Amino acid sequence: MNFTIDREVLLDKLNIISHGLPTKTPMKVMEGIMIDATSEDLFLTASNSDISIQILVKDSSLVIQEGGKTVVPGKTFIDLIKAFDSRKITLFLIEDKMLMLKADRKEYRINIMDPLDYPDIKFISLENPFKINCYDLKRAIEETVFACANTTKSPMLLGVNLKNNANKLILTATNSYRLSLKTLDVETYDPFDITIPAKSLDELEKVLEAYDESLPLELYISKNKILVKFNDVLFQTRLLDGNFPDTSNVCPKEKDIKVVVRFNKDELQTAVNRISILSPVEKDKDREMTFAAVLLKIDQNFEVELSSANIQGAGKETIIPIDIKAYNPLMIGFSSKYLVEALKVLPGNEIEISFIDGSKQFVLKSVSDNSLVEIILPFRLDN
Amino acid sequence: MNFTIDREVLLDKLNIISHGLPTKTPMKVMEGIMIDATSEDLFLTASNSDISIQILVKDSSLVIQEGGKTVVPGKTFIDLIKAFDSRKITLFLIEDKMLMLKADRKEYRINIMDPLDYPDIKFISLENPFKINCYDLKRAIEETVFACANTTKSPMLLGVNLKNNANKLILTATNSYRLSLKTLDVETYDPFDITIPAKSLDELEKVLEAYDESLPLELYISKNKILVKFNDVLFQTRLLDGNFPDTSNVCPKEKDIKVVVRFNKDELQTAVNRISILSPVEKDKDREMTFAAVLLKIDQNFEVELSSANIQGAGKETIIPIDIKAYNPLMIGFSSKYLVEALKVLPGNEIEISFIDGSKQFVLKSVSDNSLVEIILPFRLDN
Repeated sequence: MNFTIDREVLLDKLNIISHGLPTKTPMKVMEGIMIDATSEDLFLTASNSDISIQILVKDSSLVIQEGGKTVVPGKTFIDLIKAFDSRKITLFLIEDKMLMLKADRKEYRINIMDPLDYPDIKFISLENPFKINCYDLKRAIEETVFACANTTKSPMLLGVNLKNNANKLILTATNSYRLSLKTLDVETYDPFDITIPAKSLDELEKVLEAYDESLPLELYISKNKILVKFNDVLFQTRLLDGNFPDTSNVCPKEKDIKVVVRFNKDELQTAVNRISILSPVEKDKDREMTFAAVLLKIDQNFEVELSSANIQGAGKETIIPIDIKAYNPLMIGFSSKYLVEALKVLPGNEIEISFIDGSKQFVLKSVSDNSLVEIILPFRLDN
Repeated sequence: MNFTIDREVLLDKLNIISHGLPTKTPMKVMEGIMIDATSEDLFLTASNSDISIQILVKDSSLVIQEGGKTVVPGKTFIDLIKAFDSRKITLFLIEDKMLMLKADRKEYRINIMDPLDYPDIKFISLENPFKINCYDLKRAIEETVFACANTTKSPMLLGVNLKNNANKLILTATNSYRLSLKTLDVETYDPFDITIPAKSLDELEKVLEAYDESLPLELYISKNKILVKFNDVLFQTRLLDGNFPDTSNVCPKEKDIKVVVRFNKDELQTAVNRISILSPVEKDKDREMTFAAVLLKIDQNFEVELSSANIQGAGKETIIPIDIKAYNPLMIGFSSKYLVEALKVLPGNEIEISFIDGSKQFVLKSVSDNSLVEIILPFRLDN
């Protein structure tokens, strides 16, 4: 193996590849990046227990003198390419023991691993893609993935469910105390119902950050894997194995809604952040995280009040909503974290919250965009 | 107690006060900020085992309706004032049990602590100040404090020594493997020789960040404390108790210097950072930190080469110095961390390194400014 390439081009590709490296692995060789140079093409591959990424490096600066295959320690290799400040860099194998990196007055040798020890990674065959653009997928991930569970108690809730229905793609994420539901217009496609690990989606989102929002993505789906292809990148992840719970009855029916309040989003967010400073913060056994409980009250005069109290003190503030339709007074307690996280992803300046009563789940939507629905289960209030 | 003040003014003062709060303390009341309002003046005080800070709040927006004294939980109080978005805020005591914070449509009550439980903090009397300006002190701290020890093995090395000599102020910090020595022109003053805890200097530096560089500071020194006064702030810290080691013989004598090399600072720094990627990183029993060892060689042709080698590979690069005066070839190994940290504080673009030989301490100075001297002890090279 012997090739020369622009350092920045190589670094760009390695930044993508790094998202496929394992954080911890008992198999040393998996910490490596496979470099595979044929006489014409250069492939980089990394893989962990969830994700495999392969990139075909195409660039006018790439000159392959000699093909070859090797595995280099991933982190060290990336650190070095990052630290080089030369425009071009030459990489070649010495006696199949070391990879030499050479540029200007610098010579770095890295001890390599045996490519025969590297597992054979099977990518799904590239037939019959489901098409979606980069912006749509990235935004849909962002708007749902935070709502996933983060304990292994309910393994299926560790992922986002993707289901298509005619020309709609529906993404659902929940930890069973809150739910995020996103609907997207797509082209019709064979029906699928898959659940992608949240961690893989986090990495995919980071990888897509570097790309133009209009970039078309091709998704290939098999029984237990999904492959996302764009430009010369293959990003493949395993799927969660099992049935995602049916959440179709979580969204309250229109007729049950008794209170609808419109808020300025930023104003509500600031108030909830402030009131949660004096919230009781507890680690509930049944809940998977620490939460700060805040109380929202709507009285007979339809004034909206937020309040909280803990050992250090108590807070109370009145919020003037943009609009309110209330048929009943309301008192409801919920996690400020869930509310703030929902507000963070809802687009637009105005949001609408719909309540049934103080004991039932409530719904948040943007006034200007109804493709995203956020649902939060309240705390039980003991009086 | 009952007063009204501009929120931003109060927050600015609290940001300073926060540097005096303890991170951990068995005494609950010490987590508090003492608020002391006389009919005309408002004082804020915080204190931990090292530092005490007191601020006299003077502002045209301050209106004291009623004096009083209380202690509020520091972190919660600051978090709330930060989170308020009102221009003005009113604070008053309710039945000596709670402090009420009121603004617009917000009402927050904080449970207070008994001011009688708060220790009586003695500040040094404000007589006979040693004067220095903010920029000079801030820069001198920055240039020395990083070189202090961070283990309690040698307690005196946990601080920076300040000594005056005629119209010179000399700051010395060392962990016994590297040393930073700063000399400043000052007005003559009674001789002192004190060692200030590095942690206190870190906090002082952060506090001074908010101030204009031309701000005059007044230093008051007692046997075991130093008080820094500026504007309406008193920043007092304990001193380290003991004799700082004599380091006067650490700086090599001119006649012993055998190799002098001038480098472009950024170029050397980049090269050392890069070469240290393939350095052996070890936690030495005798040394207090992990270090990455790099090797610098100057051969008969006076070429300068940096190299390193670890289990993952080896690196080598030639650096072209701006100038070199060498009477002997040289091979010296040292901690890349120490070199990079020294380069970071040395001013200007060009630096000069003076070597005796491969086993003796070497000296780094800026070519344009000789007020700062950095000295590093090499590793023992086993051949």
